[in-house]
Amino acid sequence: MQPGPGRPRLEARRRRGSTPRAEILDAAAELFTTRGYASTSTRAIADAVGIRQASLYHHFGAKDDILDALLSETISAPLDLVAQLDVTDEPPQVRLYALAWFDVRQLCAARWNLGALYLLPELRSERFEEFRLRRAQLRQRYEQLAAEVATDAAEDAHTLPFRLVESVINIRSDQGSAPDEADHLIPDAVLHMLGWHGDPASVRGAAADLLDRLAEDSYQVGTV
Amino acid sequence: MQPGPGRPRLEARRRRGSTPRAEILDAAAELFTTRGYASTSTRAIADAVGIRQASLYHHFGAKDDILDALLSETISAPLDLVAQLDVTDEPPQVRLYALAWFDVRQLCAARWNLGALYLLPELRSERFEEFRLRRAQLRQRYEQLAAEVATDAAEDAHTLPFRLVESVINIRSDQGSAPDEADHLIPDAVLHMLGWHGDPASVRGAAADLLDRLAEDSYQVGTV
Repeated sequence: MQPGPGRPRLEARRRRGSTPRAEILDAAAELFTTRGYASTSTRAIADAVGIRQASLYHHFGAKDDILDALLSETISAPLDLVAQLDVTDEPPQVRLYALAWFDVRQLCAARWNLGALYLLPELRSERFEEFRLRRAQLRQRYEQLAAEVATDAAEDAHTLPFRLVESVINIRSDQGSAPDEADHLIPDAVLHMLGWHGDPASVRGAAADLLDRLAEDSYQVGTV
Repeated sequence: MQPGPGRPRLEARRRRGSTPRAEILDAAAELFTTRGYASTSTRAIADAVGIRQASLYHHFGAKDDILDALLSETISAPLDLVAQLDVTDEPPQVRLYALAWFDVRQLCAARWNLGALYLLPELRSERFEEFRLRRAQLRQRYEQLAAEVATDAAEDAHTLPFRLVESVINIRSDQGSAPDEADHLIPDAVLHMLGWHGDPASVRGAAADLLDRLAEDSYQVGTV
């Protein structure tokens, strides 16, 4: 592996991550979520990694580029999954369940609770327009899938599953972590709130099979 | 009305609010939600009100006292309602519906989207312990009511109604405002997600009557 550009490190590696870029992202994610975005300087991030500030600027032009990279991480995987789900012929409740399950799991598994940064006023600036558009795209796909699942009595509820999934961010923020059962609890509640009265256990089984199959396909594509 | 302590204003009143304290809170709420808490100084708040910084300190000892007062506003009214609901003998689905309806409405009606500040890392400090405890108390009352409503198939979902109600904060943040129908949509979805299969329209009617009755009682208590 290349050591990458920049001057040699001041200290031995302190952070998680296999590359300097990944270490900068990990340090920034910790500082942004525990001290706040506005209160964190690129100098503080460089110090936390154990590199010079000038070396940090070889990887990221500015602090908002680091934030943009971190935010993008939180939506890239579910957006990739959505594209895969679109070409399967599973019923909509199975696709929606699989998406909600996967997304809750990835939001809970991330080392730092980056979704807490979605409400930053800084995100309303033009700099983050692309991120906002991509997150809106994810939201719309949730809404379209939910509209296919919703019964007549609950058709207006199609806007809510995306919100319920993202509430794991608030659960993590209040309670330190989300309970292990959140990854079933939330997709089950998504089906209920859409007025869907079938057996969640059968949908869960089909969603698990689907996610396994798609993960295998991605692996094969990635290694060919 | 007393003009309150402090030196005379530099300028004519610019802010909403019938007292200097209310004007300071309105200005701070705008700045905290649009520029960020860490990026807003007490000087900037005083400038926005059109008073001297020293006058601001007659009302609030420090910036975190202003934040604490603003956050408390977001939970005081629903906590008061919970206390009133506890002494009615309405069925739990009506009490839960009334609470969720009232809370969504007050979170949407507030001029600034103050709930967006719940995720600030600053709130984890000891200074905000009392606020955290009071918000946890509100959350627990939601959970208890929801557990009474939940069917066996959805009993674990009792932790989610509080989260769904607070998701109007995220809807406001993303879309500028929540749709008018959110105040029915979310309480309806709360009943559905708890596996409750009755007619939401009848519960909504009973909840509306209950809220009217309680508002009248408060008025009478307040004016006696």
